[in-house]
Amino acid sequence: MKNPPALEQLIEGLRCLPGVGPKSAQRMAYHLLQRDRKGANGLALALDNALQVVGHCKLCNTFTEQPVCTLCTSEKRDASLLCVVEMPTDLMMLENTQAYTGMYFVLMGRLSPLDGVGPKEIHLDKLIKRAQDGIVQEVILATNYTVEGDATAHYISELLRNRGVKTSRIARGMPMGGEIEYVDSGTLAQAMMERRSVK
Amino acid sequence: MKNPPALEQLIEGLRCLPGVGPKSAQRMAYHLLQRDRKGANGLALALDNALQVVGHCKLCNTFTEQPVCTLCTSEKRDASLLCVVEMPTDLMMLENTQAYTGMYFVLMGRLSPLDGVGPKEIHLDKLIKRAQDGIVQEVILATNYTVEGDATAHYISELLRNRGVKTSRIARGMPMGGEIEYVDSGTLAQAMMERRSVK
Repeated sequence: MKNPPALEQLIEGLRCLPGVGPKSAQRMAYHLLQRDRKGANGLALALDNALQVVGHCKLCNTFTEQPVCTLCTSEKRDASLLCVVEMPTDLMMLENTQAYTGMYFVLMGRLSPLDGVGPKEIHLDKLIKRAQDGIVQEVILATNYTVEGDATAHYISELLRNRGVKTSRIARGMPMGGEIEYVDSGTLAQAMMERRSVK
Repeated sequence: MKNPPALEQLIEGLRCLPGVGPKSAQRMAYHLLQRDRKGANGLALALDNALQVVGHCKLCNTFTEQPVCTLCTSEKRDASLLCVVEMPTDLMMLENTQAYTGMYFVLMGRLSPLDGVGPKEIHLDKLIKRAQDGIVQEVILATNYTVEGDATAHYISELLRNRGVKTSRIARGMPMGGEIEYVDSGTLAQAMMERRSVK
């Protein structure tokens, strides 16, 4: 006993979404066909449209509908600072802090050899070239403080140091409003090790 | 700082999938545009195709590409038994047991007033009509043993009893290979209450 072919195809199609296995793909397909055909149609149109118009910024690699994104074309930004982030979400989070006015480079991932993501997949050649363009004075590594993000930052810093480019890494420590009683021990240990002298 | 409009639209479109919130929709959209444009295109095509060709069986309500599904047109099935299930998955699970040779009626859901699913949404009028067609001798209620599935079974059995139709409910008890030490107490209590005399 099987689903009709077009339904099986839809279930298979939904499997390309990250984190969606056979069971949830089936549940999604049933939901769309049973309760939300309008939504399904909207999704198909949105997919088509996004595939056509969304590409990557030639300079910073983030998603954009223009050849170069608005942030890279802005003249208000400090071009001597280049902040390296993993994903566009990270870029948006940093922009929301309003604490940074430099440029960005979006890796669109992190080094993860087991998933087949190497230096080429995160466009490190492009980053190296950009960092040596004579305008960039400092590369700020703002990858996540996960194992993979940290390894990526380390790898990039090695590459850049060999080429005489100044690099830095965003600070690690207690979060704002964090209570020592409730913060995890790894963070606390880092906060202790990287303590700063009070001026 | 926001995503480009076509990307925002795609994220919004993915929100129609059950269990997908804003964060996972964004992660899915990034993944599709960054790593799996072929898969995204396949998904768009599969959605279009499924919306066009997949409908509901006139008799049992399950998904099919024909007006009446293959199971309902089969002459090998026992038309005097009508098994009521919530979803096509349940039908397939029961078929895989090969323990049942009667017909099915698929509710495509369960009574859930809070979600706006009432008797009309699960096609009870159609079920009542079918149960009284003179061919069906027994209606077997095989909805889930969840609160909602159980309430649905109870509701249907009341409707049918008033019309003199014989109804039954699939048994509750210990699962095959179940050890008393590890089974949950609700199941164990039911297994005790519904114990059968040994012949």
